[in-house]
Amino acid sequence: LIEEIFVLKTARIITIGDELVRGEIVNSNAAFIAKELERYGIRVSAVFMLPDHYEESFSILERVFDEGEIFIFTGGLGGTQDDITRRIVSSLIRKKLVVDEQKELVLRDWYESRGRNFEEADRMQAAFPEGGRLLENRVGLAYGFYINCNGRLIFSLPGVPHEMKSMFLDEVIPILRNEGAFDPGFRTAVLTFIDLPEYILDRMIQGIVSRYPEVHYGTRASNGIVRVKFDSSSDSLLSCVREVEGQIHEYCIGQGDRPIEEVVGNMLAERKLTLSAAESCTGGLLAKRITDVPGSSSYFLGSVVSYSNEAKERVLGVERNTLMVHGAVSEETAVEMAIRAKRTFASDISLSITGIAGPGGGTEEKPVGRVYICLFAEGDKPVLTCNDFLGDREAIRIRSVNKALSMLFRYLREKK
Amino acid sequence: LIEEIFVLKTARIITIGDELVRGEIVNSNAAFIAKELERYGIRVSAVFMLPDHYEESFSILERVFDEGEIFIFTGGLGGTQDDITRRIVSSLIRKKLVVDEQKELVLRDWYESRGRNFEEADRMQAAFPEGGRLLENRVGLAYGFYINCNGRLIFSLPGVPHEMKSMFLDEVIPILRNEGAFDPGFRTAVLTFIDLPEYILDRMIQGIVSRYPEVHYGTRASNGIVRVKFDSSSDSLLSCVREVEGQIHEYCIGQGDRPIEEVVGNMLAERKLTLSAAESCTGGLLAKRITDVPGSSSYFLGSVVSYSNEAKERVLGVERNTLMVHGAVSEETAVEMAIRAKRTFASDISLSITGIAGPGGGTEEKPVGRVYICLFAEGDKPVLTCNDFLGDREAIRIRSVNKALSMLFRYLREKK
Repeated sequence: LIEEIFVLKTARIITIGDELVRGEIVNSNAAFIAKELERYGIRVSAVFMLPDHYEESFSILERVFDEGEIFIFTGGLGGTQDDITRRIVSSLIRKKLVVDEQKELVLRDWYESRGRNFEEADRMQAAFPEGGRLLENRVGLAYGFYINCNGRLIFSLPGVPHEMKSMFLDEVIPILRNEGAFDPGFRTAVLTFIDLPEYILDRMIQGIVSRYPEVHYGTRASNGIVRVKFDSSSDSLLSCVREVEGQIHEYCIGQGDRPIEEVVGNMLAERKLTLSAAESCTGGLLAKRITDVPGSSSYFLGSVVSYSNEAKERVLGVERNTLMVHGAVSEETAVEMAIRAKRTFASDISLSITGIAGPGGGTEEKPVGRVYICLFAEGDKPVLTCNDFLGDREAIRIRSVNKALSMLFRYLREKK
Repeated sequence: LIEEIFVLKTARIITIGDELVRGEIVNSNAAFIAKELERYGIRVSAVFMLPDHYEESFSILERVFDEGEIFIFTGGLGGTQDDITRRIVSSLIRKKLVVDEQKELVLRDWYESRGRNFEEADRMQAAFPEGGRLLENRVGLAYGFYINCNGRLIFSLPGVPHEMKSMFLDEVIPILRNEGAFDPGFRTAVLTFIDLPEYILDRMIQGIVSRYPEVHYGTRASNGIVRVKFDSSSDSLLSCVREVEGQIHEYCIGQGDRPIEEVVGNMLAERKLTLSAAESCTGGLLAKRITDVPGSSSYFLGSVVSYSNEAKERVLGVERNTLMVHGAVSEETAVEMAIRAKRTFASDISLSITGIAGPGGGTEEKPVGRVYICLFAEGDKPVLTCNDFLGDREAIRIRSVNKALSMLFRYLREKK
């Protein structure tokens, strides 16, 4: 009996589209596919972004069309895009295109019911390389296709992100599983951390993971929040992640890479607590992030974006004296904003943010990046932080919101 | 005398980094470089995203290292990344790496003044392929490099976006100009349109541009806003763009691809008018977008994010009767929110948004995507729109904000 050695598959992603190559939109399709594949132990070894130009794209692809790889194309399907992907794949694998006649009828009905001519180019939307098959599109018109050509698994998906995602999850994943492309024992896990610099966290995790030789991990910091991804084909993954979570519990908001606004949102909903906010320099971003979560209306009452001093006075009721003596960006104003917001919205908890996001407005005493954040909850003293965030206007605003949500997370955990 | 035929250069972008290939971050560096190059008439013909793995990345690049191209690398520089880009370029062009001794001293000083050892790997950060030179980094430590190798112009830039951008603009652009890579007559222009579907706009522009055979254009729609980019090496570009702007004036917010919040922000600032807002389903996104613009504090007073009915009553002062009889998502509530916001903040103009962003909350009468938007200005009747936006929660929220800003643009233009 020969022991089977499992070789991890690698995949190459090819996104076809001038708008991507020209930088008019960023390539979120490739990022989505790479992340999904990694969950099943398939590593992406290269991403190619190529134009809507047959000869140019073909001339590159024919040189990197290596054996044993998974190739996932997005874009270049459908009438207006000249079906470049169908033609490229057909040439690469030297298989002619054939039309699925049943699907052709579906397309013809669709066009004719809308009073549009069904032309030869439209018909090609039901074509695929001989030996392959079409992939269903549950949220749009364009079919994708799949072919297994001598061990190369080739998929072609639409370029529109929500169509691509739907087809990838509903069609590509089951095929890859059937073809045995997944390492059946491969697992990943994510822990999310707050309030710790990435390099310190990395050092702490290193010390723990070094005792689990079969577990790998990587860290990724983004504006004050660090996500750590662990993977392994060994059962020890779970014990390792549990040990990390236990030892660095103080800074861990839990397993999974759910955004922190969703984590605190669930905590609020579970405990039937309501939240309100008063924001200055973040200009609505805190409320926007909280309301990104569907169902947030059950716990989030609202926010006052008091961008001007008058608004802080008139709408929130912050004392003119506080603003005059201490300034709009001060501990005192932050505390008063939180107290007033809580009263204004009659919420259980409130958050306030006031600071200098830049690029202008900084002074020696209060530089750009200085942000005061306050949490005020029923029956407790206000919790205040004074922060000096680095980065540009956008980074400072995102960091401020992440910090406010971190403070809320800590408060809710301690009050458990 | 032989007339010189100008051949447009094309460029290939190579981004090195596991975090990009794995989809942990989207590739904004490639998009930035492609957009910048296009301004000078250099077209990007392909983008390669490759891992931090020398053999894998080299094996792909050696096959697509065509002559006559511009190659721009980002990432893979510096100590922790094993200097993979330096090694790859050195192998591709068969030139050994040499160290700039003056820059080595700068690095050594930096390390030693921080009490860190200066190792051989750190020294390599001052290395470049023989015959080339280092590129200065004004905002970070890592040097880039440049070499002209038999007509291939090769640049290597850091992966950190703000360091890459600074080095690209300060170092790469001047070198490309010196090397004659730019078509000196090539110009681009952008017009931005609102309130017109992309395919109708495209048809209208087609009719005009077809009379300017040397002008090319492309459209790009995003949540209700369409940007049209024109380019040409001919002087007729300007007349063409002027004619398009003149004929489709009604829907054009002007030249350039400045975001609409900046366009209306400038109009408000010029006329010394103030703005406030009341938002429900957009949950702060309107205020966030307005305050994305530095200096917005001179015209934006604030917003009430009244996510709950109680907040609409308590904070804005919307009549309970209006909410009870017509509902929170209704024309009447939208109008009252705008009127109350204007009064609350004592602003010249106010905007209000109330609607159903989904995924839940829709009814047969008021489906997901139904959004009422109202503009109320001193001395005028309220302007109201009823919209049925398509898309997911995020798209509906962005479309709502774009529409509100479009309404403000139209109002300000008419009041000129």
